[in-house]
Amino acid sequence: MEKATRQHIKEHNRNLVLKTIFEHDSISRADISRHTRLTRTTVSDIVADLLTEGLVSEIGVGESLGGKSPILLSLVEDSRYLIGLDLAHNQFRGAIVNLRGKIRELVTLPVNSRNGKQALALVYEILDRLITASSVPLVGIGIGTPGLVNITEGVVVNAVNLDWKDLPLAQLMEQRYHLPVSILNDSQAAAMGEYTFGQKGTSESNLILINVRHGIGAGIIIQGRLFHGDGGGAGEIGHVVVVPEGGLLCRCGNRGCLETVASAQALVKQAQALATQPIQTLLPRSPQEINLDTIQLAFTGGDDNVRRAVLETGRYMGLAISNLVGTLNIKNIVLTGDMTRFGRPWLDAIREVISTTTLARLAQETQIEIGHLGENSIILGASAMLANNYSLLFNLTEMQPRR
Amino acid sequence: MEKATRQHIKEHNRNLVLKTIFEHDSISRADISRHTRLTRTTVSDIVADLLTEGLVSEIGVGESLGGKSPILLSLVEDSRYLIGLDLAHNQFRGAIVNLRGKIRELVTLPVNSRNGKQALALVYEILDRLITASSVPLVGIGIGTPGLVNITEGVVVNAVNLDWKDLPLAQLMEQRYHLPVSILNDSQAAAMGEYTFGQKGTSESNLILINVRHGIGAGIIIQGRLFHGDGGGAGEIGHVVVVPEGGLLCRCGNRGCLETVASAQALVKQAQALATQPIQTLLPRSPQEINLDTIQLAFTGGDDNVRRAVLETGRYMGLAISNLVGTLNIKNIVLTGDMTRFGRPWLDAIREVISTTTLARLAQETQIEIGHLGENSIILGASAMLANNYSLLFNLTEMQPRR
Repeated sequence: MEKATRQHIKEHNRNLVLKTIFEHDSISRADISRHTRLTRTTVSDIVADLLTEGLVSEIGVGESLGGKSPILLSLVEDSRYLIGLDLAHNQFRGAIVNLRGKIRELVTLPVNSRNGKQALALVYEILDRLITASSVPLVGIGIGTPGLVNITEGVVVNAVNLDWKDLPLAQLMEQRYHLPVSILNDSQAAAMGEYTFGQKGTSESNLILINVRHGIGAGIIIQGRLFHGDGGGAGEIGHVVVVPEGGLLCRCGNRGCLETVASAQALVKQAQALATQPIQTLLPRSPQEINLDTIQLAFTGGDDNVRRAVLETGRYMGLAISNLVGTLNIKNIVLTGDMTRFGRPWLDAIREVISTTTLARLAQETQIEIGHLGENSIILGASAMLANNYSLLFNLTEMQPRR
Repeated sequence: MEKATRQHIKEHNRNLVLKTIFEHDSISRADISRHTRLTRTTVSDIVADLLTEGLVSEIGVGESLGGKSPILLSLVEDSRYLIGLDLAHNQFRGAIVNLRGKIRELVTLPVNSRNGKQALALVYEILDRLITASSVPLVGIGIGTPGLVNITEGVVVNAVNLDWKDLPLAQLMEQRYHLPVSILNDSQAAAMGEYTFGQKGTSESNLILINVRHGIGAGIIIQGRLFHGDGGGAGEIGHVVVVPEGGLLCRCGNRGCLETVASAQALVKQAQALATQPIQTLLPRSPQEINLDTIQLAFTGGDDNVRRAVLETGRYMGLAISNLVGTLNIKNIVLTGDMTRFGRPWLDAIREVISTTTLARLAQETQIEIGHLGENSIILGASAMLANNYSLLFNLTEMQPRR
């Protein structure tokens, strides 16, 4: 609880009006008043401010319910821009995103195994380019990075592939760009993206996103907010044990982790083993040529052994998701990442296991879908951390892009 | 977000002052002002109201830091009472609880397999007695019940042993007693109890409580509030699958659930099987005489087979807790229920598995303890749902106990 003052009320009510306009394609002042239960006068005063700020515009007249036809208001989605970054395995991707999550500019740079300061320089390069390109006031920068993140302090605690340890990424960016910066783990960012921009029409305030690729991670949204646990490690489900007896050794040092049986790397290893066996297969015979693309070709071509291997990864995912559903009773489960390319058959394998290992009532309620945002979920989620912060949107008009 | 008005500010600030006084044994007006960042005048006005209401009293003078010695304020812990109920397997227990979680009156009635309306009559009987006994204004009634609960609507969706289905328990109680009523699942209530009254000195706002008895359930506190999931089923970890291959059939219809290997009923079944084998044992030879008491006797007496069976249940609990920690990264794990009687050896078996199946960093942070409130955790947690609602505490002076 924080002390409340008149200034708080004013800001709170303005954010409430702004949120209501955000949530509608178009809406009249009278309907805003009905939704917010603020008086017509208060709404009109706030709307006048929002019009001056350029955040909202009058876009026409609605249907009359007797009296004068009401003027409809709508968010000016390109009145402010956000920047979102996805520091992915092979390439860093950055984008200018508008207030409705539409990408206006995209910069992609290959990583080529750069790490440490060189990787950081790549981040600067992308941001320099995007900030120069922006013609509209910027709200802030959101970054989705692999590894463990301390969200509160904006520190990358440990990102092995990038060789970043205790890197104060938010602070570095804020010093250079003088904009608010938000740092998230990539799976957490993807969860924010799908929650904010991918799930049009659902009213649930909870969501679990599972990012299944080289590694496996989850992002958990509770009451509309990202839950990051006591140490920022919430969602580290790649290292939950699903093979309690005699499981494979995992890179974390334990055995039988979900990553050893359900990730893209696990599938590639299995396919490499298959390719060297004296069996009929559509896989290339050279282990070096085996990757998700060639596996997918064999899979869609009808290679039974490959199919079995793919569905087996799905069944282990199902077991892990079943545990999540049993623990949290969150209905909305969204899957993203490389492995979603195996589409419906993979998804059906997951669903089948859930239906036989979860309490029937919980299983019936649960909806498991592949994400709607494709490869942009992390960029959009990183930027959404700032778009949801309505206070940041206001009074930015004089804050012009730097450089 | 809800509309903010001047009335909201006043209430918000009063609750803030009350919360600050709650959180200290004693505190001066100046220190309240420092904590809340409210002006001295605002604090003095609010404290005057709290003194009039009898919620707070002046208990002496503190050390001077130069000027006049400050007057110390303290919560009058017996100025309001709460009622908490625990609808346990064999007996219903109800208590009058003060604002610091001290039990002032306890009523216990045996259930003797009563269910349906007869069980409801038993609830009325306990409440009638407690309300008659209370000499102080009552804040409300909290009930911890087995089964699945819709907390928002105060409905017991399904409690098999009590034969309650879609029972609007809160509504029935409110109509009869004209007091606010809060209904929780028993594990959720225990979590609230340990969080509010059991964890003195910890500042964490997240906690997982696991209640290990005939069945197994969990209560999850996130950001100081009970998390109940989309359908009220959060914490149903008894039916998370921990034996994926060839597990025992569970009462839920699935196989390999945690309850089939880690609960009190699982241990009793294993002990019954042991007792009929031609081995040396300290267990009674008649299966009917095997219960947790006789198992504990054999365990403490040094029966190796019984010891192995007990530790095996601990190891499965460890695996399930490891999954929870990996998923949620919540540091504070509290264990309650019958099975905690196996104390340190059982706890060590749990901890050992966690140390070898959880990411090292997460495992190090995690603290697993047996609850501090013993058999009263559910009663105290049920009442705590109302004690935390500071708005309810105010202006109750004219609301006298009924009947």
